[in-house]
Amino acid sequence: MATQSLPRENAISELSQFLGERLTTSDAVRDQHANGECGVYEPQPPDAVVFPRSTEEVAEIVRVCALHGVPMVPYGVGTSVEGNVTAPHGGICIDLGEMNNILRVGEADLDVTVEAGVTRKQLNQHLKDTGLFFPIDPGADATLGGMAATRASGTNAVRYGTLRENVLGLTVVLPDGKIIKTGGRARKSAAGYDLTRLMVGSEGTLGVITEVTLRLYGIPEAISAAMCSFPTLEGAVNTVMLTIQSGIPVARMELLDDVQMAACMSYSKLDYAPDNTILFEFHGTERSVEEQARQVGEIAAEFGGSDFRWTGTTEERNALWQSRHDVLYACFALKPGCMVWATDVCVPISRLAECLLETKREIDENGLLAPIVGHAGDGNFHVGFLLEPGNEEELAKAKSVNDHMIARALEMGGTCTGEHGIGIGKIGYMEAEHGDAVEVMRMIKRSMDPQNLMNPGKVLVL
Amino acid sequence: MATQSLPRENAISELSQFLGERLTTSDAVRDQHANGECGVYEPQPPDAVVFPRSTEEVAEIVRVCALHGVPMVPYGVGTSVEGNVTAPHGGICIDLGEMNNILRVGEADLDVTVEAGVTRKQLNQHLKDTGLFFPIDPGADATLGGMAATRASGTNAVRYGTLRENVLGLTVVLPDGKIIKTGGRARKSAAGYDLTRLMVGSEGTLGVITEVTLRLYGIPEAISAAMCSFPTLEGAVNTVMLTIQSGIPVARMELLDDVQMAACMSYSKLDYAPDNTILFEFHGTERSVEEQARQVGEIAAEFGGSDFRWTGTTEERNALWQSRHDVLYACFALKPGCMVWATDVCVPISRLAECLLETKREIDENGLLAPIVGHAGDGNFHVGFLLEPGNEEELAKAKSVNDHMIARALEMGGTCTGEHGIGIGKIGYMEAEHGDAVEVMRMIKRSMDPQNLMNPGKVLVL
Repeated sequence: MATQSLPRENAISELSQFLGERLTTSDAVRDQHANGECGVYEPQPPDAVVFPRSTEEVAEIVRVCALHGVPMVPYGVGTSVEGNVTAPHGGICIDLGEMNNILRVGEADLDVTVEAGVTRKQLNQHLKDTGLFFPIDPGADATLGGMAATRASGTNAVRYGTLRENVLGLTVVLPDGKIIKTGGRARKSAAGYDLTRLMVGSEGTLGVITEVTLRLYGIPEAISAAMCSFPTLEGAVNTVMLTIQSGIPVARMELLDDVQMAACMSYSKLDYAPDNTILFEFHGTERSVEEQARQVGEIAAEFGGSDFRWTGTTEERNALWQSRHDVLYACFALKPGCMVWATDVCVPISRLAECLLETKREIDENGLLAPIVGHAGDGNFHVGFLLEPGNEEELAKAKSVNDHMIARALEMGGTCTGEHGIGIGKIGYMEAEHGDAVEVMRMIKRSMDPQNLMNPGKVLVL
Repeated sequence: MATQSLPRENAISELSQFLGERLTTSDAVRDQHANGECGVYEPQPPDAVVFPRSTEEVAEIVRVCALHGVPMVPYGVGTSVEGNVTAPHGGICIDLGEMNNILRVGEADLDVTVEAGVTRKQLNQHLKDTGLFFPIDPGADATLGGMAATRASGTNAVRYGTLRENVLGLTVVLPDGKIIKTGGRARKSAAGYDLTRLMVGSEGTLGVITEVTLRLYGIPEAISAAMCSFPTLEGAVNTVMLTIQSGIPVARMELLDDVQMAACMSYSKLDYAPDNTILFEFHGTERSVEEQARQVGEIAAEFGGSDFRWTGTTEERNALWQSRHDVLYACFALKPGCMVWATDVCVPISRLAECLLETKREIDENGLLAPIVGHAGDGNFHVGFLLEPGNEEELAKAKSVNDHMIARALEMGGTCTGEHGIGIGKIGYMEAEHGDAVEVMRMIKRSMDPQNLMNPGKVLVL
């Protein structure tokens, strides 16, 4: 390490000169930036953490690191779960949290430009008097830069799409410190390669996203929620499938299996039955919301859904969705002292029941505790393995169930991750999913980041 | 040429051996493949045209061309308008017209996989008994491979998005002849770089698209159309702007200025008034269609729109849309013997009136005949300059108006092309629009196509 550490020390000393106290090498801060929210991946702290306040400062940081050959890890608030922000090669963690200005709200164009460190809740709070909102909601109050980098989605994606569909343009600091703007403010363009979409989902391996221009939507005239419980998981999944196939534009359609529902009800102190459950939300005019709910209610009844019940008040609706968002904490509460390993796959909707039921069967066979929650309308579901720290046998079983689930999803034409990203956790599945296309990804990575300094060790094995 | 032609002759002879009569060097066929639909660009024929019937054959063609260093130009049906398929360096035109099989219809997943040479009308004809349709409609009956390559959109994009949003995955033959698959069948994925979106809009400069997996939609329960005429172009554009800003989910909202409307009515022998006109189409349930039309009618009235009139029957609606689709032919008829130079820009919707009116003023000042038609709901409009062949002064004036229009669009945060692509016609505007980001596009091009053989001379000046 002694010979390797010299360039790092030089870089840190150079960066300190212009960042002052906004560079730190304190253990506490480094440890805080050593991992996202998944305890299964080993925390790997960076050598230093910097807190830039502008794109130009990020560019200067990147230039200094590039000059000294020091790795960089862009960081939002650390809510990712696939080891996306660990620093396996050390280096400089670029924490964008102080770049949290909302730069421009385009009310007339339904768009907004924010710095990368703005969180989605902060944005919606800021927008609250405009009648507009940003719908994409991955649960955690992630930064919009991080959400763009991970191609995040979440509960509303079935209606509004993912970050892929909702980023209009980006400001990016390239691995050599050059600043580029991708995309623009027009709703569509046929002008050259789609660098915006290339950066979205690249997890900081091709550059640092510093500004994001996003689509906004008018707050619907009417929003209503409903829930429905099912005697079998199959009935619940079939309801989701037929709803999508019928083209009903539900805004949210979240599936909780009985284990997850019990955990959530207990944690949130709500008294709905701990059965396989779907939570729905409908957006539209009064009329269309009513129409959608009626259609979905009929489908649910067909599959044994009972107790299709409206959550009338805003408070009741918010309590229900808060409970859904708290699944991670509900999991911790279900098995005190446990680690939660959250993994996700996404399959064509017609294969969802098969994929989900087979996975659940394997979880049960292995005697694991692993609630399932899904953005089922997209064919995307999460398994949260609740693991006893240090229990290698349990971890091995969970890994095997995860492996099989991913193989199953890929065999069905699906993907090894619907929304968590590759990070380090899914890196071993890239070839199985993409075959020779991985080599094209490598070509792009090598041409844009020839020193392999941007978030090295993530997404691609080079 | 003599020294250069040897590798070409070798390549042609090698290709002939396995393609037989599906390779031709006849002047007639070469001339037919020398340009798309815009007469302003000089036709530049390839040395030979090949008609592969499978991805494997395309791969073999590409391998032979790569070996001999011979340029390749992928070709659909030649409906592009920015010189996208000319062969400025000669070489082999790969006509995908015989790859026209619909490989799989996923009724339960609302998706379909087609060979690149399938046209959008062929697809919708094939789907007609399934209750599903593919909505993207650029007017011309283009191939779906060509539409993907150009990131096409058209009249329905305001509701359904462009090819960017509607391609789930691709099969691509890379410049070295390797076959890759990008994307998949899941609705979303966070697994690595978005190669699908990188290929969509790359105009054949990064590889040959041979198969396309597309999203489909249920045919709406109700479809209705309406039209409305306006005393001023401004009133019409303001109606579009407010409709979008109000979040009304119109499926189509096409703007025709008075010149274009007069041309269309005359060509199509319809008797609607030759005023600035908007054609609307609404998709949804009976109720929602009614609701949308009522809301839009109120907005139109606010801006002086008169005669908001329903086109009750399917026949009437089809006649109206056919007339809209025939704008190019209507233009030819308006000035017999003319060339039509169709150019397009796209701006944030709030700037549409300004951009459009200023452009129209300049057209008039220069004494040019140039109807305007717009996918106005996206902020996208087309100017069709009707030019006398050989009239250099007129052409120079049109070029100047086009230059100014593009500069105006870029200054407003827009793009130099909303849907026609770059080809050779817009290549000079790439730096103005993208700045240093063009260098990233070049890096990608160079790393994927180091010999610069894939549609050379298009999109990027290397």
